Amino acid sequence: MALQTALDALADPVRRLIVRELAGSPDWSRACGTFGHVPVAKSTLSHHFAVLRNAGLLEQRDEGARRLNRLRRDEFEARFPGLLPLVLAEADPSGPPEDTGDAPA
Amino acid sequence: MALQTALDALADPVRRLIVRELAGSPDWSRACGTFGHVPVAKSTLSHHFAVLRNAGLLEQRDEGARRLNRLRRDEFEARFPGLLPLVLAEADPSGPPEDTGDAPA
Repeated sequence: MALQTALDALADPVRRLIVRELAGSPDWSRACGTFGHVPVAKSTLSHHFAVLRNAGLLEQRDEGARRLNRLRRDEFEARFPGLLPLVLAEADPSGPPEDTGDAPA
Repeated sequence: MALQTALDALADPVRRLIVRELAGSPDWSRACGTFGHVPVAKSTLSHHFAVLRNAGLLEQRDEGARRLNRLRRDEFEARFPGLLPLVLAEADPSGPPEDTGDAPA
């Protein structure tokens, strides 16, 4: 897989948010429908999942009516060492508003 | 500096080419005028240099009529570990046509 594809996939903040959420959940525990809180249209969300899948960042399997996801953490790290950790370490700009008053600059 | 800025800067193949060329040259040895072989308009090239500078990837200084460049390799690596090595390891798709006949796949 080309670096271009990986960079294009991760250059979108919503896709990085999806990646971070998947990283914080057990494999196959998150259906696409559990991302309804992400503030984009459902069709846009489907597009983001497709881009991430095509970039080798996640795999999907259908279980009944649900499409489950797994972050391809180890595989992606093997191909592009260091890239995924940067995304996972990134502060979520749309994160919780609490406890930011005295956060270090 | 935000990861978004770094990813946006590096998501362009011409900018990655500039970064690789700077990495292969001593600091301050490359004026912007030495990138005339890059197949984009001069104004586009200036824009690419500005984006890279704003992303903290290079610094510039004027010496007479020449604008010299330095890749901020260590600084960028400290901020985004692993990202620059991925760019430097990337094969240049517009690279030399020689010796590719029996290159490993």
